[in-house]
Amino acid sequence: MKDFQKLVYEIEEFNNELHEKDFLLTWEKSVDDLKIILNVASALAYLRNSNMATRVFDSGIAVSQFRDNSTRTRFSFAKAANLLGLSVCDLDEEKSQIAHGETVRETANMISFMAEVIGIRDDMYIGSGNTYMREVADALKNGHMEGVLQQKPAVVNLQCDIDHPTQSMSDLLHLKNHFGSLENLKGKKIAMTWAYSPSYGKPLSVPQGIIGLMTRFGMDVTLAHPEGYNLLPECMEVAKKNAAESGGSFEQVSSMDEAFKDADIVYPKSWASFTVMQTRTDLLKRSDQEGLKELEKACLAQNARHKDWECNEKKMNLTKNKDALYMHCLPADITGISCAEGEVSEDVFEKYRVQTYKEAGYKPYIIAAMILASRIKNPAEVLYNLAKNGKNRILE
Amino acid sequence: MKDFQKLVYEIEEFNNELHEKDFLLTWEKSVDDLKIILNVASALAYLRNSNMATRVFDSGIAVSQFRDNSTRTRFSFAKAANLLGLSVCDLDEEKSQIAHGETVRETANMISFMAEVIGIRDDMYIGSGNTYMREVADALKNGHMEGVLQQKPAVVNLQCDIDHPTQSMSDLLHLKNHFGSLENLKGKKIAMTWAYSPSYGKPLSVPQGIIGLMTRFGMDVTLAHPEGYNLLPECMEVAKKNAAESGGSFEQVSSMDEAFKDADIVYPKSWASFTVMQTRTDLLKRSDQEGLKELEKACLAQNARHKDWECNEKKMNLTKNKDALYMHCLPADITGISCAEGEVSEDVFEKYRVQTYKEAGYKPYIIAAMILASRIKNPAEVLYNLAKNGKNRILE
Amino acid sequence: MKDFQKLVYEIEEFNNELHEKDFLLTWEKSVDDLKIILNVASALAYLRNSNMATRVFDSGIAVSQFRDNSTRTRFSFAKAANLLGLSVCDLDEEKSQIAHGETVRETANMISFMAEVIGIRDDMYIGSGNTYMREVADALKNGHMEGVLQQKPAVVNLQCDIDHPTQSMSDLLHLKNHFGSLENLKGKKIAMTWAYSPSYGKPLSVPQGIIGLMTRFGMDVTLAHPEGYNLLPECMEVAKKNAAESGGSFEQVSSMDEAFKDADIVYPKSWASFTVMQTRTDLLKRSDQEGLKELEKACLAQNARHKDWECNEKKMNLTKNKDALYMHCLPADITGISCAEGEVSEDVFEKYRVQTYKEAGYKPYIIAAMILASRIKNPAEVLYNLAKNGKNRILE
Repeated sequence: MKDFQKLVYEIEEFNNELHEKDFLLTWEKSVDDLKIILNVASALAYLRNSNMATRVFDSGIAVSQFRDNSTRTRFSFAKAANLLGLSVCDLDEEKSQIAHGETVRETANMISFMAEVIGIRDDMYIGSGNTYMREVADALKNGHMEGVLQQKPAVVNLQCDIDHPTQSMSDLLHLKNHFGSLENLKGKKIAMTWAYSPSYGKPLSVPQGIIGLMTRFGMDVTLAHPEGYNLLPECMEVAKKNAAESGGSFEQVSSMDEAFKDADIVYPKSWASFTVMQTRTDLLKRSDQEGLKELEKACLAQNARHKDWECNEKKMNLTKNKDALYMHCLPADITGISCAEGEVSEDVFEKYRVQTYKEAGYKPYIIAAMILASRIKNPAEVLYNLAKNGKNRILE
Repeated sequence: MKDFQKLVYEIEEFNNELHEKDFLLTWEKSVDDLKIILNVASALAYLRNSNMATRVFDSGIAVSQFRDNSTRTRFSFAKAANLLGLSVCDLDEEKSQIAHGETVRETANMISFMAEVIGIRDDMYIGSGNTYMREVADALKNGHMEGVLQQKPAVVNLQCDIDHPTQSMSDLLHLKNHFGSLENLKGKKIAMTWAYSPSYGKPLSVPQGIIGLMTRFGMDVTLAHPEGYNLLPECMEVAKKNAAESGGSFEQVSSMDEAFKDADIVYPKSWASFTVMQTRTDLLKRSDQEGLKELEKACLAQNARHKDWECNEKKMNLTKNKDALYMHCLPADITGISCAEGEVSEDVFEKYRVQTYKEAGYKPYIIAAMILASRIKNPAEVLYNLAKNGKNRILE
Repeated sequence: MKDFQKLVYEIEEFNNELHEKDFLLTWEKSVDDLKIILNVASALAYLRNSNMATRVFDSGIAVSQFRDNSTRTRFSFAKAANLLGLSVCDLDEEKSQIAHGETVRETANMISFMAEVIGIRDDMYIGSGNTYMREVADALKNGHMEGVLQQKPAVVNLQCDIDHPTQSMSDLLHLKNHFGSLENLKGKKIAMTWAYSPSYGKPLSVPQGIIGLMTRFGMDVTLAHPEGYNLLPECMEVAKKNAAESGGSFEQVSSMDEAFKDADIVYPKSWASFTVMQTRTDLLKRSDQEGLKELEKACLAQNARHKDWECNEKKMNLTKNKDALYMHCLPADITGISCAEGEVSEDVFEKYRVQTYKEAGYKPYIIAAMILASRIKNPAEVLYNLAKNGKNRILE
């Protein structure tokens, strides 16, 4: 209970600018706002784990729109909604009339009557996903001002072409809990590195999100990838600027070994380069199936030249005390398990498996916190009231 | 609060025959019953907008069955269910065993254990949709009498081949609010006119629903369409009879200009003729893809002869004070926006855009009112109790 | 209320080993545990039918995974979840990343954050379904022990290759209510017989479930099928053993007439033999479409030799007082209704139609009871508290 009180007390101390705002990129938020999200997430987890009811909404809708396959994020969003008392309405574009020429503005308003949040995943097309989310967000803001919507739903980015804030914030909460505090992350070295995988077209949002977020907290962020696997230039700029401001550092190296050296944390993960993603975007828009096959073939061949980018015991031995924390957003391509050769060896993954599962477990709470902080002016007060009311989640 | 009290007071005064009944066609309901639906909808909106909880059901199921694509009605139904505390179970016929020869009666009963409502959209086949809904309704009535179902779920028509009562009732609520009262609608001229659209096969349920409903309230209803775009003869009869009884009028003219002349309200919207829909029904039942393509081609060519049926500024200048209220069930085919040439010009649509969005926003409340009035004997009392309990919708 | 008190009192008296356990096969449960499920189901039905709220969970998730088509079980699961206050998250494997090489363990954990139950239907592959459920159950048990999952969700078998416990327990509750008590079932003859149907590949889980469950309660269970329609040998062993222990009997005969003779209850239903299902499993795994077509053809031809296995008036006249109770899990293949020649004649089915509908209506309560008994240590106390709190399900 003391931990809970501390979490809520801190929320009240921070400068809160989240109310009525969307959550699209972590670097658009102040450090205080990010801390509020972490604390609200932890406070909600505390309440639930103490069998206290967390329904803030007696009724209300959470709209989800997934423009790419997703099990985990879909479930995380549904769980966040349920935790707060909201029901999910999924905008399935195959079932809907959206393909029939409706404007984004109109659809955004039509689906948002009585909605508290719209969670969007749109990570397939470089240059499109985040832009689409902003269009929706603008439409909803206007719809609210025009009196069409009784409330302005929060738009929450569930992964786009640029950032994956619900993932990176879950990762950050994992780090905070693992190392004891955000303060303790200062000076810690995190290696965000590319890793080999026999697949192509994996989004850039995770590495971009990680270098864009971890540089905010004074960490020494090292990025490594083979030639040709660049991230979006603007994300590189963001990371540099963040590091300068937070007193951390942002460095780029060209080998996994170099990145792993003395690292406190490693995050080895496969991705496609943004040039590939750009080409793919063009081909997808033109529905050029032949071109897509060619691109896939070329990319897999390119990937295959870097099979040595595998996180294994030898590589882990380069890290601080041979004992860095291994992170992954899951699912990982595990050598000998999910593929012949992959991002991580079986023994390394198994050693950290439970940790990566826990890392994933923060996501529903992070999403719930993003919803709550946008929809409720004073989240600390609501959390206090939930605890004070003391209603059981499970009747006993 | 005074407005709310007035709404609820009126509900008590009306002769209520909605309890345990289905909502399939507006013209099967008394004017009092229609007024009750409008008032319950407005009272629920008042409560929600005042942050008061509207859960009437602590648990319970709302079954939906969509036999045609739908985003908006699907979402409206889900929101109505959520507003009252119900969870949606969607009967997805692709996922189900229904295609395997089950009888309607059996399926209707099987899906209805614990259900408070079944919302059905079935507008593809002329002569089928409303008939199907009655089959389901009969099966549920019997199931309840036989002790199979603990309650008789309300069947709510979410659009059929004949009527679209949740749409027309939302439109009516929009008119009531816009003109101040139902009383004020007396003598107002509404022009329900066909409009050009580069698409075919649009259902007749909206124009039929509008002429069948607005003639109940003493309005002067004028229908206009090019030759060959007739509505169902029985709907024309209903409109005539209604107008005679309500002291309004029902007139048919052959040009948009004539219909718009001195109109207080215009509702320009594309539809297919019932002869086309009948042919299409036969072709669909025979899965005659070749025939369907031919029909589409012929219809689009027929449509294209009437591109002048566009609601634009020139046409709007013919209306009362050049300032009639423009209505549309959305999505509208907007010239230069959603198509090269369409139902409405961009400037006219933009002028009334917010109004049409608000018009659409009534639908979840109308559906909720239809559910509540069927399932609850004394809706006025329940609304009073919700207000008296004063539970917040959003905890603060 | 007296009935309710008796039900709950009995629950307290039974030796309860259901807490934190899964429900995969009825013969893994003690008779006391089965009685608890029946009583909890009936007590929940009593509360709901008395307009008392049954939400035990203020928030929480019920995950469903259907690896085969299903309307009824899907709806039953959703209704059970709703009855207790849970929201359903459906794991749709087409929409998910599961096909992309994730391990069962990881997926099981990822979907289970905040989940109280995972209901699985997996009946297509002989040797796979129940095994898969056990893998999931093990993963969740470990996930809970490792601190990944705050609670261990109950795994509920919604039909597998071996058993169909939610069906057979609903059937048992139907028999208990029909004959007045479980005690009264002692010495009653139930004929579980194969019946002709112009379809193939129907699972064996129902007949196996029935002979495995009804032999627990001192019934005289007679199994009959044409040559070549054997059940799994281990299920036959289970039935024999059960009968010996309960003081009932388990007998196999080779004609429907013999089975029906003096029966108190008849359960005529089509199924494929396990050798056919095994062949089919192999063909499905190899995606051998040609082989599958051949198998279907051969099976339908084999079926067609046994069209005399139809439950009709002549057959029913062989039963005790010509008046045995007819049972079916639905949908039945009714001669002249759903097919030209089927499992049951129209007149026999119609005589018992309402009974079979009621039989089906128990399933949501049985599933809810399985969830509650696994998740709640003392279900009797919770039921008492629900009744004591006396909150209305429908506000009045």
